[in-house]
Amino acid sequence: MEVGKSIVRVDAFDKVTGRTKYTDDLCDASAYVAKILHSTIAHGRVLSIDTGEAEKIEGVVKVVTCFDLGEYKNYFPTAGHPWSTDVSHQDVADRLVLTDEVKFYGDDIAAVIAENEVAASQALRAIKVEYEEYPVVTDVLEAMKDGAPQIHKDYPNNILKHTSISRGNYAEAIKEEGLTVVDRWYNTEPVQHCHIENFICYAYAEGKRITVVASTQIPHIARRVVGQALGIPWGDVRVIKPYIGGGFGNKQDILYEPLCAFLSLKVGGHLVKLDCSREETFVANRTRHGIKFHIISHVRKDGTYAARKIEMFSNQGAYASHGHSIAAKGLGAFPQLYPCDNVEGDAYTVFTNRPVAGAMRGYGIPQAMFAVESHTEDVAKIMGIAPIDFRLKNLMPQGYKDGFSKNENYYDTFRQCIEKGKAYMDYDNRLKELSNQTGRIRTGIGMAAFWYNTAVWPISLESSSSRLVLNQDGSVTLQLGETEIGQGADTAFSQMAAEILGISTDEVHIVSNQDTDITPFGTGAYASRQTYIGGFSIAKTAGLLKEKILDYAYILTNMPPAITDIKNSMIIRTTDNRELISLRDLATEALYSLSDSRHITAESTAQIKSNAYSFGCCFAEVEVDIDMCKAKVKKIINVHDCGKLINPALAKAQVEGGMSMGIGYALSEIQLVDKKTGKVLNDNLLDYKLSTCMDHPHLETAFVENPEPTSPFGTKSLGEPPTCPVAPAIRNAVMQATGVGVNELPMRPEKLYEYFNKAGLLK
Amino acid sequence: MEVGKSIVRVDAFDKVTGRTKYTDDLCDASAYVAKILHSTIAHGRVLSIDTGEAEKIEGVVKVVTCFDLGEYKNYFPTAGHPWSTDVSHQDVADRLVLTDEVKFYGDDIAAVIAENEVAASQALRAIKVEYEEYPVVTDVLEAMKDGAPQIHKDYPNNILKHTSISRGNYAEAIKEEGLTVVDRWYNTEPVQHCHIENFICYAYAEGKRITVVASTQIPHIARRVVGQALGIPWGDVRVIKPYIGGGFGNKQDILYEPLCAFLSLKVGGHLVKLDCSREETFVANRTRHGIKFHIISHVRKDGTYAARKIEMFSNQGAYASHGHSIAAKGLGAFPQLYPCDNVEGDAYTVFTNRPVAGAMRGYGIPQAMFAVESHTEDVAKIMGIAPIDFRLKNLMPQGYKDGFSKNENYYDTFRQCIEKGKAYMDYDNRLKELSNQTGRIRTGIGMAAFWYNTAVWPISLESSSSRLVLNQDGSVTLQLGETEIGQGADTAFSQMAAEILGISTDEVHIVSNQDTDITPFGTGAYASRQTYIGGFSIAKTAGLLKEKILDYAYILTNMPPAITDIKNSMIIRTTDNRELISLRDLATEALYSLSDSRHITAESTAQIKSNAYSFGCCFAEVEVDIDMCKAKVKKIINVHDCGKLINPALAKAQVEGGMSMGIGYALSEIQLVDKKTGKVLNDNLLDYKLSTCMDHPHLETAFVENPEPTSPFGTKSLGEPPTCPVAPAIRNAVMQATGVGVNELPMRPEKLYEYFNKAGLLK
Repeated sequence: MEVGKSIVRVDAFDKVTGRTKYTDDLCDASAYVAKILHSTIAHGRVLSIDTGEAEKIEGVVKVVTCFDLGEYKNYFPTAGHPWSTDVSHQDVADRLVLTDEVKFYGDDIAAVIAENEVAASQALRAIKVEYEEYPVVTDVLEAMKDGAPQIHKDYPNNILKHTSISRGNYAEAIKEEGLTVVDRWYNTEPVQHCHIENFICYAYAEGKRITVVASTQIPHIARRVVGQALGIPWGDVRVIKPYIGGGFGNKQDILYEPLCAFLSLKVGGHLVKLDCSREETFVANRTRHGIKFHIISHVRKDGTYAARKIEMFSNQGAYASHGHSIAAKGLGAFPQLYPCDNVEGDAYTVFTNRPVAGAMRGYGIPQAMFAVESHTEDVAKIMGIAPIDFRLKNLMPQGYKDGFSKNENYYDTFRQCIEKGKAYMDYDNRLKELSNQTGRIRTGIGMAAFWYNTAVWPISLESSSSRLVLNQDGSVTLQLGETEIGQGADTAFSQMAAEILGISTDEVHIVSNQDTDITPFGTGAYASRQTYIGGFSIAKTAGLLKEKILDYAYILTNMPPAITDIKNSMIIRTTDNRELISLRDLATEALYSLSDSRHITAESTAQIKSNAYSFGCCFAEVEVDIDMCKAKVKKIINVHDCGKLINPALAKAQVEGGMSMGIGYALSEIQLVDKKTGKVLNDNLLDYKLSTCMDHPHLETAFVENPEPTSPFGTKSLGEPPTCPVAPAIRNAVMQATGVGVNELPMRPEKLYEYFNKAGLLK
Repeated sequence: MEVGKSIVRVDAFDKVTGRTKYTDDLCDASAYVAKILHSTIAHGRVLSIDTGEAEKIEGVVKVVTCFDLGEYKNYFPTAGHPWSTDVSHQDVADRLVLTDEVKFYGDDIAAVIAENEVAASQALRAIKVEYEEYPVVTDVLEAMKDGAPQIHKDYPNNILKHTSISRGNYAEAIKEEGLTVVDRWYNTEPVQHCHIENFICYAYAEGKRITVVASTQIPHIARRVVGQALGIPWGDVRVIKPYIGGGFGNKQDILYEPLCAFLSLKVGGHLVKLDCSREETFVANRTRHGIKFHIISHVRKDGTYAARKIEMFSNQGAYASHGHSIAAKGLGAFPQLYPCDNVEGDAYTVFTNRPVAGAMRGYGIPQAMFAVESHTEDVAKIMGIAPIDFRLKNLMPQGYKDGFSKNENYYDTFRQCIEKGKAYMDYDNRLKELSNQTGRIRTGIGMAAFWYNTAVWPISLESSSSRLVLNQDGSVTLQLGETEIGQGADTAFSQMAAEILGISTDEVHIVSNQDTDITPFGTGAYASRQTYIGGFSIAKTAGLLKEKILDYAYILTNMPPAITDIKNSMIIRTTDNRELISLRDLATEALYSLSDSRHITAESTAQIKSNAYSFGCCFAEVEVDIDMCKAKVKKIINVHDCGKLINPALAKAQVEGGMSMGIGYALSEIQLVDKKTGKVLNDNLLDYKLSTCMDHPHLETAFVENPEPTSPFGTKSLGEPPTCPVAPAIRNAVMQATGVGVNELPMRPEKLYEYFNKAGLLK
C-alpha cells in the first residue's frame, strides 16, 4: 500500500539542496526586464504620459503606455476559473493589459522594457503622467451609497453582484414566542497571501505563437486568458509552469501573464521578464476580501435556532477578479454549518478604489467562519449554554445532505473532531482551572468548527486529465494538469499512481512542470480540489495503463488479465500469487519486441460531478495581557476530517501552514489603506505583520480519517481548510478569558485597546 | 491537401531570426565546464595520471581520471540502434566513460570539471600522463595480418565481424566460356560529417534521476545507453533533445552523454556542460568508414553478368560503434542494384588504431556506390557498351523483389530517373560534343545510379509512437519521438497530421524537442526512416484523434461518424458536404462541457514490418585541368524517386545538401592520419577541405514521384540518398574526359597527379 504512507516528498532532495528550478532560474540572461508604472492616484483618468526622458535612458528598449494598446485592447477576466461556454457564467472581463482608467492606487498604466533592472527602474522614475482625478471610495458600505463615486460604469452603487438565499419563512418564524434575538456585526479586513516567491513570468514569441513561463497555479487557465487578452487563438499560447514558491490563491488569478506577453510582442517577440517586487505584490496582485457580516439569530430557549438572517458586504476592490463567487461561497456556508429551517441571506460584492481582492486560501470561508463561529459563541454565552454543547446541538448532523451540491455528511464527524480537540487541550479540566481569573493577564480557551466544500462542482467544470507512460525499466511517468504549488501534490499523486499500479512510489516519475502544449488538461490548484479530483483522474488512467500492461502480460505469459494483477512490480497470477514476470522485463519486451512493439501509455479525462464536505475544528488557548492589549496563543490544535490521508506527514505539514496563516489572520495581519488617497500604507514585510514561527506555539494537528465514499482514495479537501477555524477559535478564547467578544479582525493591540477600553477593562 | 505542398518550414521564422534555442542556448550559466583529456598516443596503456598541478588551478572543481570510475565502470555500446532483447543482436559494448586502455590518438582518459573554460583548459595542460606504448596499426589490410597489433582482446586479426553472401554457384559460373573478367580494387577514405553545431550536452541530477540535454539524433536511444553506462535503471535517465545544428549520423552515436552524466554525478549532480571543440569533433567523434573494395566481374559478350565477387574491408577505427552493420549494408547493395545469378561477397569490419568510424549519411552506401558504379563504368568501357545502355540492361528490373527485406521495385523507375537526368544534361548531344577532346583542359560527362533501403526492418525494430492533442481552439499539438535535426522533419510531420485531420498545417503545433520522460517512444533520425516510419505513426494516431473528434461531433450534431468528416477545419456531413460545426467550436465545447468534458487526445504506436526501396541517379559534367590535376564540377543533377514528396521545396533542399556532401566526398574531403603515430593531421576546417558553395555549380534536382504502395503517404527515404551517387558520377565524368578511371577517393590533385602520371597524361 503506497497510499497512507508518510513518504518523503518527491521534490524534497532538490528543494533542500536548492536545486529546484523556479521561474527566475529558468529565464535566460538575455531577457529584457519589464517594469510596470503604477498609478499614483486611486481613481481617475490618465490624460497624458510623457515618456521622452525615459526613452533617452541608456538601456531602455521601449516604453509602452496605456495609449499604445492598438489591436491588443481586449478586455479580459483574471479569475482562475474554468472557462464556461455559457456567456452568463463567464467571469467579468474588466481588465486591460494597461489602462488609462485608473481604479486604484497602483493601477497599471504603462511599462518600461529595458536591457537591465537599473535602466528600467530609472525609466519608471523619468516618466511624467498627467491625471484627471475622481473622488475615491474605499469602504464597502460607503461605496454602496447613492452618490458614491462610480467605479465601473455598468454597476450602479458599485454592486458587482448581489445574491440571496432563502429557506422557510423568516418573517413568520421570527414571530415565534420566547425567542432571544442576537444581532451582531462582524468585520474581516483584507490580508495578503505573502507567498515566498513573488509573481514572476517571462514571455517570448516563436513564429506566431507566444510562450509564457509563469509562476501560476493555473497554467491551462492562463493559456485561455492570455489568448483572450491578446485576441489570438488560444492554441497559439503556450504556458509553462515551473516549480512555484507558494501561491495561496494569489496565483489562481491571472496577474501579469497577459501584460508580459503583450510587452514581448511589442519588442518583436523578444524574451521579456516581469518580476513583481514585494511592494507590487502587496498592492497590485490580489488580497483576501475584507467582508462585513451582519447576523441576526432568533434562538429558542432550548438552544435551537428558530430563524436566522445573514447579510454580507464584500469589498471587491477595483476589479472583478474572482468577484462574487467568494462572497457566495461564504454565504453558502451559514445554512449548512448550522442548519436552520428559516434562513434569509444576502451577499453583496462591491467595487471600491482598493487593491483588487481575489482568491485566498479558504475562498470566503475564513471570513464566514470568523463571523459565524464568533456569533455562535456569542449566542451560546447569551443563552447560557456551554459553547461546545451548543454547537453539538446545532451543527450539521450526520446524514445531512445539501440540496445543491449533493454533499452529504456521512459520519458523526463533528463530535469525533471535537472530542480529539478536547482531549488534547484537556478541555474540561482546563476550563475549570481558568474559570475564576481576576489578574491583568488572563488565559482563555476557545474553539471553532468549520466545513469546507471540496472542488467547484456544480458551480463550475470539474475535469482532470492525466497521462501515464510505462518506461522501459518498468517505472512510469505521470503527467497531469493539476499543479504542485509547494503543497506536496506531486507526492500525493505519485503515491496514488503507485497504489493503483502495484509499484512503489519511487518508481513513479512525476512531471512536475505543466506545459499547456503537452500536459493533459487540468484546471490547476484551487478549491482544495487536487487530491480529490486528481485522484479520480489518476485512478482512471492508472486503471487503463494496468489494463494495457496485463494485456501485454497475456501475450508474454499466456495468463489472461482475468487472473493477473500487478503486485510489488511483478505480474502475478491472482489464483496462486505466483510471480509470472517482472514489470521491468515486460516493459522492456513490450517496447523492443520485434513481433509486437508497443509504447504502453494511457491517458484519460475524468469529469467529476460530485464534491465532498471536509470538516474540522480548532481549539486554542490564549493568554491575554489586558494592559498591553496583547493576545498570545499558548496552545493550539486543529483537528481535520479530510477523509483518508494520502500522506500523513504531508497532511500534517499542510495543516501547520494553514494554522500559522490563521494565527496571523486572527492577531496581526491587515492591509492598511489610506482612506483619502487609497494608497496602501504597509506594502512590505516590515510594516505588514505577517505571522511567523516566532508568533505561535507548537502547532498540534490531529485527524479523523472517515473515508469519503465518493472518492477513489477516500480523500477530500485539506489545502484550504486548516486556515478556516483558527481566527474564531482565538477570538473565542479571548472572549473566554476577558468576557470581551472582539468582532473585528485582526485582534491587534490597537483593536483590543478599543474593545477592552469600551468594556471598561482598562480602568 | 496539405501533403505535397511546399509549405514554409515550421521553424523557419525562429531559425532565420536566430531565436531557435540549441543546447548551448538552454544551458544555465551556472554550469560547470567539463573538458576531456585525450590520449596523445594511439595505442597503449595509461600507467599513471598526475592531477596534482591541475587541481591547484583556481576554478578547477575536480579532475576525474580513468582510474576513478568505481561503480561506473560499465562497458556500453554507442551505436544508435534500437535495443534488442536478443543478446546476440545487441551492439558491441566496448566503451567506458574514461579508459586506461588507449586505442586511438585522442582516446578519453580523464576529464576536468571547472567553473569556467579557462580554468578547464589550463588544467588539461597541467595534467601529466605516463603511458606504456604499443605498436600502432591504421591500415585495414595491415591490421588483418597475423602478428598485427591486437586492439581488442576478443577479436583475432582485429576482425570485429565477417559476413558472407552467396547466391548460385560462383565457382561453376566463372567457368562459362567467353567471359571477360574485370578485376579491380576501389578505395574510399574516412571523412567527417562537419555539422555546424558540434556535439554538446549538459547533465544534472535531480534526486536519484539524471537529466542529459544533448545535441543528439536519438534521444530515446541515448536514454537507454546512458542507463547502461551508469548502471542505473533506464527510467532514471531523462534525455532532452533541443533543436540541433546538424548530425548527419555523427549524432546517431552516443558520443559524450554518458561521460557528461558521469561527471555530473561526480560533483554531486551539479550541472555540467561538455561542449566538443571542432578539433575534438574531427578526432574523438565519428567518421564515415573508409572501405576498400575488391570486385571481380565475369561478363558475357552481351553485356550481362555471369558471376560477380565482392570483397569489402571496412576500417572501423578503435571502437565498435555501428561496426559491421555499415559494411553489411554496403555489401547488400551489390546484388540488388545489379542482380546476378552467381554472386559471392565477403565483408570484413576491422579494428585499427584510427578514430572511430560510425554512421554517416548513406550508411555504407556512398562507399558501395562509389565502388560498384565505378566498376560498372569500367566494365561498360571494357565491353565497349555505352554506360547507360549497360546499366539499363543490368539494373534491378521493375518487379524485382528482395527476399530478405521483401522490398519490391514497383516501377520502371531507373529508366524514368535516367531519362530526366539525360534530358537536363542534354546528354546525347553533349556526349557527342565531348567525344574528341585533345586539349589539356577537357570536359567529361558521367553518371551513376543508386538504391537505398528506407528504415531498418527486418534487421532491427521499426516502431514509432506519436501523440496528438486537440487544443481548445481546434488546433492540434503533435509529439513524436522522431527528431528534427535540421532536415525539416517537423514540417513534413505537421503536413501529414494536417492532411489526415482535414486542417491546415499552421493549425498543427509540433513539439520539436524530445524529452524521453514524456515524448512518445521513437528511435530517432537515421536510416532515412522518419517520413516513412513517422508517416505510419502519424496516420494511425491522427486517425484515432479524428475518430474521437467525430464521436464528439455526434454528441453535438446528432450526425454519426459514418457520415461525417473533417474538411477545412469544419465538421462536415459527407452526404451533402454541409458544414455542421467548426472544429474550433467542437474543441472548446468538448473541453469545457459541463455535461461531457473530454480532453481529446490520441496516442499510438505503429510498428512497421516493411521498408521500401528508394532510387535515383546523378549526372555530372566535370572539367578536368590535366596539368593542374584539378577536376571541377560544371553541371550536376540528382534525380530521385523517393515516392510522393511531402514538401517539394524541402525535398529539393535536402537533395541539394546531399549533393554538396557528395561533391566534397568526390573531390576534396579526407581525414588524414599519420600512419606512425595515428594522429589526425587535419582536425580543423582549414586543413580539412570541406566542400562549400564555392566549390560547386548550381545544384539541380528532379524527382520521379512513383508513390510507394507500402507507405500511407506514398513516401520513402530521401535523407541519405542524395549523397550516394554523386562521387561515382563525378569519377565517371573524369574518366570520360581523360580516359583515366580513378579508383580512390577523394580525387584531389595529389591523387589525380598519381593517376594521370601513371596513365602518361602528364608527359
